[in-house]
Amino acid sequence: MPVIVHKYGGTSVGDTDRIKKVARRLCDIQRAGNEVVAVVSAMGHTTDELLRMAHDISPEPPDRELDMLLSTGERISVALLAMAIHELGCKAVSLSGTQAGIRTNTMHTKARITGIDTRRMGEELKSGKIVLVAGFQGMSPDEDVTTLGRGGSDTTAVALAAALEADRCDIYTDVDGVYTADPNIVPGARKLDEVSYEEMLEMAATGAEVLMLRSVEYAQKYGVPLQVRSSFTGQPGTWVREEKDEMEKAVVSAVTHTGDESKLTLLRVPDRPGIAATIFGALAEENVNVDMIIQNVSEQGTTDISFTVSQSELAAAKHALDKISAEMGVSYIVGEQMGKVSIVGAGMRSYPGVAAKMFKTLADAGINIEMISTSSIKVSCVIERGQIEKAVRSLHEAFRLESS
Amino acid sequence: MPVIVHKYGGTSVGDTDRIKKVARRLCDIQRAGNEVVAVVSAMGHTTDELLRMAHDISPEPPDRELDMLLSTGERISVALLAMAIHELGCKAVSLSGTQAGIRTNTMHTKARITGIDTRRMGEELKSGKIVLVAGFQGMSPDEDVTTLGRGGSDTTAVALAAALEADRCDIYTDVDGVYTADPNIVPGARKLDEVSYEEMLEMAATGAEVLMLRSVEYAQKYGVPLQVRSSFTGQPGTWVREEKDEMEKAVVSAVTHTGDESKLTLLRVPDRPGIAATIFGALAEENVNVDMIIQNVSEQGTTDISFTVSQSELAAAKHALDKISAEMGVSYIVGEQMGKVSIVGAGMRSYPGVAAKMFKTLADAGINIEMISTSSIKVSCVIERGQIEKAVRSLHEAFRLESS
Repeated sequence: MPVIVHKYGGTSVGDTDRIKKVARRLCDIQRAGNEVVAVVSAMGHTTDELLRMAHDISPEPPDRELDMLLSTGERISVALLAMAIHELGCKAVSLSGTQAGIRTNTMHTKARITGIDTRRMGEELKSGKIVLVAGFQGMSPDEDVTTLGRGGSDTTAVALAAALEADRCDIYTDVDGVYTADPNIVPGARKLDEVSYEEMLEMAATGAEVLMLRSVEYAQKYGVPLQVRSSFTGQPGTWVREEKDEMEKAVVSAVTHTGDESKLTLLRVPDRPGIAATIFGALAEENVNVDMIIQNVSEQGTTDISFTVSQSELAAAKHALDKISAEMGVSYIVGEQMGKVSIVGAGMRSYPGVAAKMFKTLADAGINIEMISTSSIKVSCVIERGQIEKAVRSLHEAFRLESS
Repeated sequence: MPVIVHKYGGTSVGDTDRIKKVARRLCDIQRAGNEVVAVVSAMGHTTDELLRMAHDISPEPPDRELDMLLSTGERISVALLAMAIHELGCKAVSLSGTQAGIRTNTMHTKARITGIDTRRMGEELKSGKIVLVAGFQGMSPDEDVTTLGRGGSDTTAVALAAALEADRCDIYTDVDGVYTADPNIVPGARKLDEVSYEEMLEMAATGAEVLMLRSVEYAQKYGVPLQVRSSFTGQPGTWVREEKDEMEKAVVSAVTHTGDESKLTLLRVPDRPGIAATIFGALAEENVNVDMIIQNVSEQGTTDISFTVSQSELAAAKHALDKISAEMGVSYIVGEQMGKVSIVGAGMRSYPGVAAKMFKTLADAGINIEMISTSSIKVSCVIERGQIEKAVRSLHEAFRLESS
């Protein structure tokens, strides 16, 4: 019997009426002859409400306790959804991450899945039940509840789909699919019918919020075909899957952006082996995710090193730099209000001149580029935050993404 | 090092300020040189809110899913309390029922504790942490979350105190202690300094809501000294412990009452062996808790059998009776609006005439007694619900409970 995994985000289960609607869809799919697993997020603003209480009590609550707290939201959703399914005469069972066999490492609030023991899920499916799994959570080797970080329920869904060798994984959300740009910025942005894993990875890494990076990595690694679609319309969405030869390879598939970058530059750092390792080692110790790194050509034995971090990690990054810059006797400067605009496309590999066209487009729009980073299917530019919207619109137009 | 177990009810952790207050008390007790375990209920109206959502979805949600849902409330409380303790510079760890090693049977929504594996708690205490345990819940042999029913957090606290061989168990609640009668009905009701386990058991069984029956049974079985006290005043409350010779044995210690009884009477049941087993077997199958049972003397080979159930279980009781009364060809009648008034006192054993005085008091007040049941330290009378308050006041006065 085909196994289908669904994932429902917080808006899709935002109130009891929406939960009943999801229940109907799951029963229909089961009755059509499928084994059904659904991963569910916390209802609407539950997580925000829990966070508010936590911060009422402590400005920096311990991560382990945050996980204990936040993991309750998804348990509430799955229990209510199980009730709604029973009410329709189908059988269902709700499982916590622990019960679903999701094992993680001990990195609280951003744990990684280390393995999935599918025995319990397998038994429940065999007994004719729809299996509902609390998203975003697992159990550490210490038998503590862990959470997988922002968007973690997507990762749960893809990981379960991989472990159960599911036929597909539908990610139900509050948007229709993946777009050529953020429709809030570009009204003419177009929904993509399909993108390759690689493109989706680059898009997620450069600001497309529709899927979490890690869930796409997981899907690619295990070859799980994903569909991102709307929980409200039921229309086909965007498929994310292996790049095929017959796939229309757009030179540029989408323009993505982020608006929460900060840039830090260490000035006149001694240019000797091991210096980068010292700096970024110190940042890693503070759990800071560094995005782009640029080291200028050395002059007179010193070099400038710039890098970007998400603004939410700026305080931690400064904390790390304060220590090591003092040790090394160097200073650093911060550009807080930065953003990043990127173009992504699998066809870029075979078309030279795409990066040049991007730089010219930005220059024509009067936008100064502060940092550049490229991969074989992506070009990213760090620019001032205030110019992000203009940049996205100019690039969407220059690469003719509106026409299909 | 002495081990002290505290239990905090829902009002005691009703908002983040109250949680901070509890955190301060726990830190103080630890700093005074104790190992501290605290069992915590769900915040204020969390459980009601969760139940409301469940009933929005289903009039009769499956018990297993109700447990999954309701157990989240206590997890939220312990996680927040752990954060508040960290904020004060003490160490704490929150544990779910499962993590605290609380094993139960599979009777969802009213599970019984079958054992406690104290290893994890022991390790955490040894490492200097205050251990916070989510009340009211455990894990079944199927590795499902179970809940212990109304007031289950009291049972959790006493069971942990027993398993950890704690020096004492303080039950912090929103009242000062155990009273000679409900102060809402008898303004002159007096707080008792101590009562024996046996008295407390009878009081809990006959309507005193301050402690759940099962928690007192547990305390008695393992000899755990309990103190019921106010979370807000911090004043000494009521000790519940082994009856000692030097304990002042009041003939009557308290007047208790319940206002939610229903009485069912099966009419002209064939008077032959096994008939009671059939009737009460059928009720047990529907999980109905029968309280008082009376069988009249047989006449002409038939008998009337009356019994009382809590009004919330009346529907289930009728369901059972509909089936077997049809099979046996008998009819039954229901008195829905009943209540029960009781007098409890360890000294009753040595004073004859206490029951007679109770009956006379009620008669003098014009109250008709419908059923009577006695134990060595208790007399209970089922009466009409509308006369409960008058009965309680009359008995409190007749047995001179106001003067100490």
